[in-house]
Formats: sequence, structure tokens, C-alpha cells
Amino acid sequence: MKKKEVIVAEHAGFCFGVNRAVKMAEKELAKGSKVYSLGSLIHNPQVVADLEAKGFQVVKSAEEVPAGEKVIIRSHGTTKWEVEKLQKKHATILDATCPFVKKAQLVAENFAKEKVQVVIFGDPEHAEVIGVKSYAGEDALVVADEKEASQTGTFAKVGLLSQTTQKKRNFQKVILELTNHTMDLHIINTICSDTSTKQNEVKELAQKVDLMMVVGGKESSNTKKLFQLSQANCPRAHHVETAAELKKEWLAGVKKVGIAAGASTPQKSITQMKEKIEALLE
Amino acid sequence: MKKKEVIVAEHAGFCFGVNRAVKMAEKELAKGSKVYSLGSLIHNPQVVADLEAKGFQVVKSAEEVPAGEKVIIRSHGTTKWEVEKLQKKHATILDATCPFVKKAQLVAENFAKEKVQVVIFGDPEHAEVIGVKSYAGEDALVVADEKEASQTGTFAKVGLLSQTTQKKRNFQKVILELTNHTMDLHIINTICSDTSTKQNEVKELAQKVDLMMVVGGKESSNTKKLFQLSQANCPRAHHVETAAELKKEWLAGVKKVGIAAGASTPQKSITQMKEKIEALLE
Repeated sequence: MKKKEVIVAEHAGFCFGVNRAVKMAEKELAKGSKVYSLGSLIHNPQVVADLEAKGFQVVKSAEEVPAGEKVIIRSHGTTKWEVEKLQKKHATILDATCPFVKKAQLVAENFAKEKVQVVIFGDPEHAEVIGVKSYAGEDALVVADEKEASQTGTFAKVGLLSQTTQKKRNFQKVILELTNHTMDLHIINTICSDTSTKQNEVKELAQKVDLMMVVGGKESSNTKKLFQLSQANCPRAHHVETAAELKKEWLAGVKKVGIAAGASTPQKSITQMKEKIEALLE
Repeated sequence: MKKKEVIVAEHAGFCFGVNRAVKMAEKELAKGSKVYSLGSLIHNPQVVADLEAKGFQVVKSAEEVPAGEKVIIRSHGTTKWEVEKLQKKHATILDATCPFVKKAQLVAENFAKEKVQVVIFGDPEHAEVIGVKSYAGEDALVVADEKEASQTGTFAKVGLLSQTTQKKRNFQKVILELTNHTMDLHIINTICSDTSTKQNEVKELAQKVDLMMVVGGKESSNTKKLFQLSQANCPRAHHVETAAELKKEWLAGVKKVGIAAGASTPQKSITQMKEKIEALLE
């Protein structure tokens, strides 16, 4: 009889950038300060709720931040227009933009200075991409996949970068397509190493287990990609925000379970999931 | 009954660069000058033999050119060391380097100045590649295919260019592989437009005929690639230098013949091939 086992992906949970953002917020809140956040600090409702209980307030834009207050820029970063608005308001800015995202912003800014056609591979609705695009100049394009890339024109020179949480394989498809649109293609791979490490791990883990449980915010881009990879590599996979969503029937006939968690999933959620599965597998 | 037909690819034969080199040589020879050529002017023995009859002399290197003489740099270009040697000898240099090859040399030189790892996709033994590499700095690498690209190390920045006569599909395979070796990949596609036009044409033509005859020098890189494409897309294909090599049995059961010719194949060879096939198909 096959041994029952629950395996947690080695790099599951908070990445460096998210950990840094949460720590920055907690440190300020510990001083008794009120801290505003431009958008949800990270894509994890449970973590944000915990912070809100300590004086944290999520706002939609710089307009909602009272003059002179403390405001945190989340790990996704924000647009340069929002930063300018906050500066005009003499807000104290705590910049928790993930260093990988900051790099993507700088790459976009440099490409724009070089007057090349900037192309960003990513989700045009995602806060990180909206922020990066604000640095990429007026004519920058965002393409969500190779099909959208194929619909662009031809350009003398193209500077291509990626949303930090995209899959490398998909980035490569966009690269290939763009080689048909320009003779001068400069690619800077801005996919963060945590993202690719997590993705590689999950792909491997998913192939070894009967069920994959992916824990993380339903809005989290990187978590959604881990879920896609789990579905593609494992007969059964579910994406949940907390252990409470786990259904007993998902474990029917299951011996080996893999747990993956996105960059914005706290350790606590992973531990709870592991314990609950272990109890039900017994 | 299917109609018998011989179709010549629209862009078969001399490309712009080769035509220019041959015209330059002929113009000087018409003045009664002796003209040296650094290596075979073009990869077509018949054309070179015609020029030799008029006072043209092929030499292997600058050492063999007497001081003060006229020397033509062929369409493939040469190394910067050879040019320097000729300058020291006060040779009159007629530079027939194809403008596409000249561009590749400039791209290599600029990449070297930017201190990126230069990678040239091409045949390391080919004169054009040897010439381009001489401009690419000491550490430049030449990779003949994606397998060789996979055996390179990892680099902070890579500048990638191609031998002008390579297949775009193969260049794309090398691009994909190199995305695994660097986070900063600048690709300048130096494949010449004539090459890709000829290749696309031949691929289409080969699918429509029963036999493909590829006419051109056995050493001609671009002709060899047209032959590979013909083999891949047509049940029967042969690579010959002249119509004299055509064997009657190749035409057995054949209704439709396609003729392709490399960038160094003169119009005369194409016409002779067409006439011979038409006579045999009757």
C-alpha cells in the first residue's frame, strides 16, 4: 500500500518582496502610526485584514490619502503619476515596491529613453503592469500573449520586458513572435527568480502527487499561474485561499498531496492547510 | 494529363551584393587592370573562371598581394586584420563587401564596444563569419546551432547576430536557447532580406512541384540551405553547379520542375538549366 504523504513545495509562500512589504507595514504600525496603502498591500485578503486591525487603511489612489500622512507603496509598485501626487501632498512615502518590480520600472524607463518601441509582456489590468507602463513612455504596448504580440505592427527597434510573475515559457513565445516584427529586439528578462523557482518546483511536485492544493489569493497573478501549472501536471488540483475551503471529498482515493503557495501567502495559511490535510488523510 | 511545366523561383540567382561585387571586378578588368581577389570572389567556380580569363587572380590572403596592387574584397567581406595588412601594403582596396555583411560587422563591433558577450550564429568556417568575428572582440563566440548555444555558459548580457545567409527558423531556435543563458539578450537580425525571400519562395515552390533543381556552387552556404529546404518540401531534389550535371533519369515520371538558384548563381546557369529541362521533358 502506497504511503500517505503531504509535501509542501520548498519555496512556498512569501517571497522576498512581499515579506519586505509586510514587515515595513508592521514596523510602522507598531509605532502606533496610521498607515495608508495604495491598493491592497499584497493579494492576500487574510494578511490585509490582520494589518487593518492594527491601523492599516487601504485606499484606491493618492487622492484619498490626507496631506502629510504616511503611505506605503505596495510590492507591486505604482504609477509614476501616483508617486508625483503623493510628493505634492508631502506624504511620507514608504516605498515597498519589490526590487524586481523596481528593476522592471527602470528597464522600461531606459528603453523609453533609447526611443525604442517598448513592449511589456503581462496582464494590462494588473497593478504592477500599470505601474511599469507609466515609466515606459506614451507609446508603450502591453501584450498578454503571443497572439496579441502577433497583432502589433513592425518596428525599427523593440525593447521587451515582462511582468515579474509571468511564466518564462509564455515569455519565450512572445519573444519568438516579436522576432517577426523587428530586426532589433532587446529583451530584458524581468521575471523574478522567486517566480520561476516556485514554478519549476510546482511543476515537478505536481507530477509526483495525486492532488495539488494551491494556497493563495484568488486575485494573485503568481498564485493563479501555480494553479495552472498544477492542473497541467497533476490529475487533480484546487486553488483555495485558506484551509477552510478544503473539501473532504477532494481527498477521496488520494495518497500523496502536494501543497504550493503563492508569493503573497503567509506561512500560517500553508501550515494550516498541511495540518488539515494530514488529519483528513489519516 | 498533368501539364508539363518548369518554374523558376522569382528571386533565383545573383543577389544585390554578389551582383555588385561581380560588376566591380568586371569594371576594373575592363580597364585592363590586374585585379586580385581575397579568396574566391563568389562561391561559384564558373563565374570566377570567366573573370580569371580576363586577368583576375584569386589569392588566399593579403600576404600574396604584391604591394601597391588592386585588390577586391569579396561580398563575404574579410577580417579586419586582412584589411590592415592591405592598407600597410598601400594596396588599392575595392571593397565589395555586401552591405548586409558590412552591417553585421558593424553590429558585432558595436556589441563589442558595449562589452556584452557577442554571439554569432553561423558556420565558424565560413569566410563571412570569420570576417564578422574579427570585429566582435576577443571573447566572441560562434554557435552553429541551438545545441552549441546550449553548451555556452551564462552571461550578464549577450549581443546576438547572425551570418547573413542563415535560416530564420534556426536563428529563432538559437534565440530561444540563449534566453536560458542571460537575462539581457539583444538580438540584431542580420539575416539578409534576399536570403529570406529566396528561402520563402523555395519552400512554397518545392511544395508545388515533383522535382526541385537547385543550381549553385557546392560551397555556397545560401545555396546549400535552399537545397535543404527543397529536400524537406519536395519528394525529389538535386543540387548541381551547372546544367551539365543534370541526369535524364531524374526527370522520369516528372511533370512539374522547380528551379532555385543561390545568390552567387549567374542568370546564364539558370537559363541553361531551364532550357535543358524543357528539352528533356518534351
